[in-house]
Amino acid sequence: MKKSFVLKGNICYSKNQKELYIIDGGYAVCVDGISKGVFPEMPEKYSNLPIKDCGNQLIIPGLVDLHVHAPQFPFRGLGMDMELLEWLETNTFPEESKYADLDYANRAYDLFVQDVLKGPNTRACIFATVHVPATELLMDKLEDSGLNTYVGKVNMDRNCPEYLREKDASVSAADTKKWIEGTIHKYDHTKPILTPRFIPSCTDELMKMLSEIQREYEIPVQSHLSENRKEIAWVQELCPYSRFYGDAYDKLGLFGGMKTPTLMAHCVYSSEEEIHLMKENGVYVVHCPQSNTNVSSGMAPVRQYLNEGIKVGLGSDVAGGGETSIFRAMADAIQVSKLRACCVDDSLEQLTVEEAFYLGTLGGGAFFGNVGSFAPGYEFDAVVLDDTNIPTTLELNTKQRLERLIYFSDDRNVISKYVNGRKLF
Amino acid sequence: MKKSFVLKGNICYSKNQKELYIIDGGYAVCVDGISKGVFPEMPEKYSNLPIKDCGNQLIIPGLVDLHVHAPQFPFRGLGMDMELLEWLETNTFPEESKYADLDYANRAYDLFVQDVLKGPNTRACIFATVHVPATELLMDKLEDSGLNTYVGKVNMDRNCPEYLREKDASVSAADTKKWIEGTIHKYDHTKPILTPRFIPSCTDELMKMLSEIQREYEIPVQSHLSENRKEIAWVQELCPYSRFYGDAYDKLGLFGGMKTPTLMAHCVYSSEEEIHLMKENGVYVVHCPQSNTNVSSGMAPVRQYLNEGIKVGLGSDVAGGGETSIFRAMADAIQVSKLRACCVDDSLEQLTVEEAFYLGTLGGGAFFGNVGSFAPGYEFDAVVLDDTNIPTTLELNTKQRLERLIYFSDDRNVISKYVNGRKLF
Repeated sequence: MKKSFVLKGNICYSKNQKELYIIDGGYAVCVDGISKGVFPEMPEKYSNLPIKDCGNQLIIPGLVDLHVHAPQFPFRGLGMDMELLEWLETNTFPEESKYADLDYANRAYDLFVQDVLKGPNTRACIFATVHVPATELLMDKLEDSGLNTYVGKVNMDRNCPEYLREKDASVSAADTKKWIEGTIHKYDHTKPILTPRFIPSCTDELMKMLSEIQREYEIPVQSHLSENRKEIAWVQELCPYSRFYGDAYDKLGLFGGMKTPTLMAHCVYSSEEEIHLMKENGVYVVHCPQSNTNVSSGMAPVRQYLNEGIKVGLGSDVAGGGETSIFRAMADAIQVSKLRACCVDDSLEQLTVEEAFYLGTLGGGAFFGNVGSFAPGYEFDAVVLDDTNIPTTLELNTKQRLERLIYFSDDRNVISKYVNGRKLF
Repeated sequence: MKKSFVLKGNICYSKNQKELYIIDGGYAVCVDGISKGVFPEMPEKYSNLPIKDCGNQLIIPGLVDLHVHAPQFPFRGLGMDMELLEWLETNTFPEESKYADLDYANRAYDLFVQDVLKGPNTRACIFATVHVPATELLMDKLEDSGLNTYVGKVNMDRNCPEYLREKDASVSAADTKKWIEGTIHKYDHTKPILTPRFIPSCTDELMKMLSEIQREYEIPVQSHLSENRKEIAWVQELCPYSRFYGDAYDKLGLFGGMKTPTLMAHCVYSSEEEIHLMKENGVYVVHCPQSNTNVSSGMAPVRQYLNEGIKVGLGSDVAGGGETSIFRAMADAIQVSKLRACCVDDSLEQLTVEEAFYLGTLGGGAFFGNVGSFAPGYEFDAVVLDDTNIPTTLELNTKQRLERLIYFSDDRNVISKYVNGRKLF
């Protein structure tokens, strides 16, 4: 049963990419899990609802992580001296192979879910591994946590160690169908998402089968795009018929369009043609600034994507990134955009606090539907934040308090959390 | 009275720039505040000393912050959308003017000192403001905290708002002398350091007077150098006789040399000539990666400084930087070095974890003498770290645990702290 209630506090959410809507001591009304809006006075109409008074705390929409690898959580912060392709071989693939063992998966996924749960994120799009049982176990745990997530069993039938490679395209596709059928209607707030790892690890044959599966079940898609220069060159070799990396996905039937909601993580080096196609096909760019820094990928031109009207959200990309909190991704996005403007290309202005907050809430939330705002009709995801452990002598307004939470908060600041009206804690 | 004792645990410190010395379950011996070394077994010779068993925790040298502005602590994380010179006018100078009021200084400096105290730093070189009473108050508080610090009353007699500008060079110099005489012998572990803010805010006349004061009292010097391109151009206008920014300091008698230990924060855009002079004069480069990012200064070529054999340490540079912890500065230094190598100049290799740890301990510690190591003869600064709240399924070795603490730790991980043998908590 969806809950109806009112939260009172200093409410802050994005009106749009440029502006925050802030109402101090306001009332955020949730009816059956859906926001009825935010009001300066308690509306007569909702006077029968219970009110939770959050005092001087901040109330913001839940944060949205559009790209994170759950099985990589155990080795975050380790071996960060390699670039992408070497890092995959050395750190990632050996770790991901362990998820063939359900006992290991059970222990490791508990750590991941607990970490996300106690932080400010309410939604996530998650890569699991190639293993169906472990992926289902992760989905069970996420469902129990109350978070809203998409989870992907990963597809890989080439260019990875044999211990992790699926037998062939047919086996990979058959396992994927079986997994989708077993999970697509199983949960309330945990859904499957098609997850070919990236072009280098999926044969054309597999990609075409996945494209058919996508059309059959109408599920969304997530993958990686134009993260690293060597990767891009490699894709060109592997798919000589493609004009650019995104074109390879497109020719294989997995690059957005009306019925194929698609997330592409990174887009650090997307060409003008690729950008144009992403826009045309409604593909989401998932900006993962910390990961792009840690594995020396580069600095994505997020301002350009925003200027072009492309859909953009943020990703933690653990374990390329270290922290699951999308507050950290917001801070990193601002910081990287400054270094890019200052050292690489001053035609693209730095991101503002308002824009980074938009990307981590409404920008990414759109992938889940009406998510990431308290405007009427939006699913009611809320995070209540206490900032008293970030002291200052100054009288700060709510926007300034939010800015400091973006830069300095950790799980101690997250007091309670609601997803689609469900109270998680 | 200096203490004598032994800490047992997983001990980790820098042998040199490239290598860590790690001894698990080792014994770090402190006699009268000085390290006698680290031993795999308890040496018979010290068997009369009390042993503190830290179990599976890590024991590292205290971290050293070579550049931080205490009065800027209240506005860290705010208004980070400006470049240096605009940020000084808008945020910094109005806040610093409040320290004319001792009540305000009392409240604000308490917050700063408490924050540093609970974190991993044991040493710091600190800018106060132009105000002598507030600077002395800060020194009193730091002395009480048990930290080892240099603190500078700031000098400014031009190019700042009148409300903060000292009356003239003579008044500034006289106040400085009075302050030095009042504090140079007052404390056990809090010392004055000469602190002309930077060339733009100090007339040549004032700088020459400060140079004389420096020689008279033989105290060290701290300032800013080549942080921002506009600042560098401005210095060239202000000091047309100088060949480069550092040459202006040098011609005014405040740029290192045998008897003038000198810290220069930033050095983002130092020319070859400036680098050569820093090396010749033994000037320390203080690398402040987060600040250089936040105020869009750029990415300092730290690898080049290390290759040249220049002395380098790390600075938090609050409030250009947000966090006082030098663990964060280590992580930022690595990350910025990767972006620099990947996007600006691939001839300079990224910094390693070992190098960042070196910079934040032994590299910066050298400014305080034999500090930043547990090698015999070093002052015994130690931080005991617990990492159980950074969970993983993996069996990690001590170096890996240190790496994760660099990326993810906060004050919860700092269990106890010793400075020159004094236990702070």
